[in-house]
Amino acid sequence: MLPILIKYILAEKPQSQDVAICGWVRTKRDMKNLVFVEVNDGSCFAGIQCTFDKSVLNDEKIENALSSLATGVSVKINGKLIPSPASGQAVEVAASSLDVLGESPAENVSAESAELDIQAYPLQKKRHSMEFLREIAHLRPRTNTFGAVSRLRARMAFAIHKYFYERDFHLLHTPIITAGDCEGAGAMFQVTTLDPVSGAKEISSGKNFDYSRDFFAKKTYLTVSGQLEAETYATAISRVYTFGPTFRAENSNTVRHLAEFWMVEPEMAFAGLEDDMALAEDFLRNVINFALDECSDELKFFDAHVEKGIIENLRQVAGAKFSHITYTDAVRELEKAAGNKKDLFEFQPKWGSDLQSEHEKFLTEKVAGGPVIVTDYPKEIKAFYMKLNDDEKTVRAMDVLVPRLGEIIGGSQREDDLKKLIKRMTALELKPEEYSWYLDLRRYGTVPHAGFGLGFERLLQYVSGMANIRDVIPFPRAVGQAEF
Amino acid sequence: MLPILIKYILAEKPQSQDVAICGWVRTKRDMKNLVFVEVNDGSCFAGIQCTFDKSVLNDEKIENALSSLATGVSVKINGKLIPSPASGQAVEVAASSLDVLGESPAENVSAESAELDIQAYPLQKKRHSMEFLREIAHLRPRTNTFGAVSRLRARMAFAIHKYFYERDFHLLHTPIITAGDCEGAGAMFQVTTLDPVSGAKEISSGKNFDYSRDFFAKKTYLTVSGQLEAETYATAISRVYTFGPTFRAENSNTVRHLAEFWMVEPEMAFAGLEDDMALAEDFLRNVINFALDECSDELKFFDAHVEKGIIENLRQVAGAKFSHITYTDAVRELEKAAGNKKDLFEFQPKWGSDLQSEHEKFLTEKVAGGPVIVTDYPKEIKAFYMKLNDDEKTVRAMDVLVPRLGEIIGGSQREDDLKKLIKRMTALELKPEEYSWYLDLRRYGTVPHAGFGLGFERLLQYVSGMANIRDVIPFPRAVGQAEF
Repeated sequence: MLPILIKYILAEKPQSQDVAICGWVRTKRDMKNLVFVEVNDGSCFAGIQCTFDKSVLNDEKIENALSSLATGVSVKINGKLIPSPASGQAVEVAASSLDVLGESPAENVSAESAELDIQAYPLQKKRHSMEFLREIAHLRPRTNTFGAVSRLRARMAFAIHKYFYERDFHLLHTPIITAGDCEGAGAMFQVTTLDPVSGAKEISSGKNFDYSRDFFAKKTYLTVSGQLEAETYATAISRVYTFGPTFRAENSNTVRHLAEFWMVEPEMAFAGLEDDMALAEDFLRNVINFALDECSDELKFFDAHVEKGIIENLRQVAGAKFSHITYTDAVRELEKAAGNKKDLFEFQPKWGSDLQSEHEKFLTEKVAGGPVIVTDYPKEIKAFYMKLNDDEKTVRAMDVLVPRLGEIIGGSQREDDLKKLIKRMTALELKPEEYSWYLDLRRYGTVPHAGFGLGFERLLQYVSGMANIRDVIPFPRAVGQAEF
Repeated sequence: MLPILIKYILAEKPQSQDVAICGWVRTKRDMKNLVFVEVNDGSCFAGIQCTFDKSVLNDEKIENALSSLATGVSVKINGKLIPSPASGQAVEVAASSLDVLGESPAENVSAESAELDIQAYPLQKKRHSMEFLREIAHLRPRTNTFGAVSRLRARMAFAIHKYFYERDFHLLHTPIITAGDCEGAGAMFQVTTLDPVSGAKEISSGKNFDYSRDFFAKKTYLTVSGQLEAETYATAISRVYTFGPTFRAENSNTVRHLAEFWMVEPEMAFAGLEDDMALAEDFLRNVINFALDECSDELKFFDAHVEKGIIENLRQVAGAKFSHITYTDAVRELEKAAGNKKDLFEFQPKWGSDLQSEHEKFLTEKVAGGPVIVTDYPKEIKAFYMKLNDDEKTVRAMDVLVPRLGEIIGGSQREDDLKKLIKRMTALELKPEEYSWYLDLRRYGTVPHAGFGLGFERLLQYVSGMANIRDVIPFPRAVGQAEF
């Protein structure tokens, strides 16, 4: 039978009850006859203290087992829950038995163990660098930081599913393997079953070797976005969202980029840019509040050890009304500020250019004093599918900017006019015939529709304060990095 | 502002209220002065009837718009909700205005439209073959069948997330791109930024071509399972589950196989095979009941048009206690039955061989009379990571078999003994050093743990009765098939 999780014991504090605790030893303290063992099972941030009174137990087997305890050892402990005299915990376990399930040597062990390649447990009780922990990504969830990140990630994912489910957005699993570079969103990974080595043999023996022989009989890639497919379902069942992995084969070795990351992309029929902005604001507020409510212990830890003040900052954003400003007005504000102070920005703001991080920061902190949604960007810096405004210069795009991070969400109303969409694609040298299925949505019962994209890891960085995006995904994938 | 979904109008029946309906026309019927238009927005199975009384409206613009309505046209209709005299619907809309948002021609249209490649809307009101609908997978969610499948799929996905969330299983996003063929589970797709065709040319012209130049500086693949990575988190935070895409590059053109499909894989620490079986049974019962409760309209449709009796069958399975039988006993039962009737099975049951579909069917229908969990399979036909029994011949594996489908879940207790695991890997010619991180889980604080895998599409086929697995995933990927 499954053991009771430590989370429930600490939350419900069922005193005087017999319990069986399973978990991993975090610390052990010897005080004459008393031995205090802190056991953690990862179900919550805190561990539970198990107290062994040697004078009462008077059991050599238990004493031997106690002496073998070290950080990382897995145990099963029976005992009774009693009020704890120690501060910071309501209950502790007055232990009556101890089973060591698995050892965890504090030092390299020789003889038989050397053959089995058992070295000292890498997670000894001390501070480890993030770089070191990334190298042991299979063990890092056993630490305070990564245990907290794991729980935060899982709960935020649920918050997202719950948010959309309750609002009749249907989860849509868009394809991972795709034949089209549908958005030109970036460099793509190829997916293939062809082997260049055997291909070389065929070529040298005069045979053909081409993609008609690949698994899908053509060149295929890993998806960069599920949006275009999401539009097909939004224009059938009204409201959908995707939550799946997306990929970029870009050689960017930064703290904000991954080759594999998870995206959330809602898409709504019968919706314009105003609806899209309202959804983005409500969504962000909702999932941030979920984190504040359901991950309070984890956020307290992040606030104390990762980024000071983050809880207060998240509360402010969740409580704020998001400002709206057009790109044109935003650039005007930036130019005005830059005009007053020549070295304010590294990059001079200019209509027609992308907003830089420093600009986004200025807009949230100095202009809006909080979250701000920038709308109606020049068409040249946005994707082909965004709806053209009547000025024929700007499109119905929006970026949601938040303090500390900058852009957290990007979205748009989609072009629903067949002729305008074909014209735009042609101008960008995209071939309409390759997007025939996408254009069908405008040929048959076209409707105004809109949606946005949110990088899940960016959201997690924002909520946790974790500096490197590789530390908010279990097994990061980046240039030269595909371990585990 | 977003329109109210038809789902809410039909569920809440708010009479005498003014409403604005948005959706797509399904049917139009002319009765002298009355025109009945059925509008569907995909939020629920049913559409809503909008009634136009020409004698009351007396509006040429509306009459012209009405005459242009055809299947698939998108509309916005204002009106008042009134009790409906028609059977099968409580309310209808007494329409006062009609806006055509997007046309949907019933016939190929020439002139300007030909240039835009507008042909007749493919989904005219008639029965279409599944094969045809698969070719227009971007439009098929607009049909009754695929609208129902879409809603079922989304709700079942939520049921799974909710089930695990409420039981403190943490969702884990295991990597999609992986460097190891960790399970030998099947043929894999390669992920690369090198081009195999030009690579073959390089090799044949005598140049070097190696994977140190690839994006990840080594050969990488699409994952076949997240289980091994899930074990790393289960042995840190106790309970996790994955729900992500997995891949097989197998040339199997069947109604039960996809190259890309979604898997659910829970993993629990401090758990044995009994816990695993209890979880599998409780999980299946729970998600089937969720479908019965939350998708009743969709299931009624499947019952009437896809597989007769499926609701009753699902109720039985959800209400049944799952039987348990060992593989050895199961083979004995099968042999006994085969001994009595020579041509009972195409494949003769034999200890050491996999159970065939016909055997699974016999076990559920004739031996158990309901769902049955078969345990303790010969180690030779199961994966290396399954825990060896004391007999050293069988492993702590389980397969859950259900009537109609056969195997729906496969799981096991994992080998937590380092020496035994290395011995088993060596026997199977797997290199322990390539699994060093996986073995670390047994080196440091090893614990009994167990889990299982469920193919999400198999579950959906089971619950919907859809015969072909390509019809329960939005955009199926199979040999030669990567459209959209």
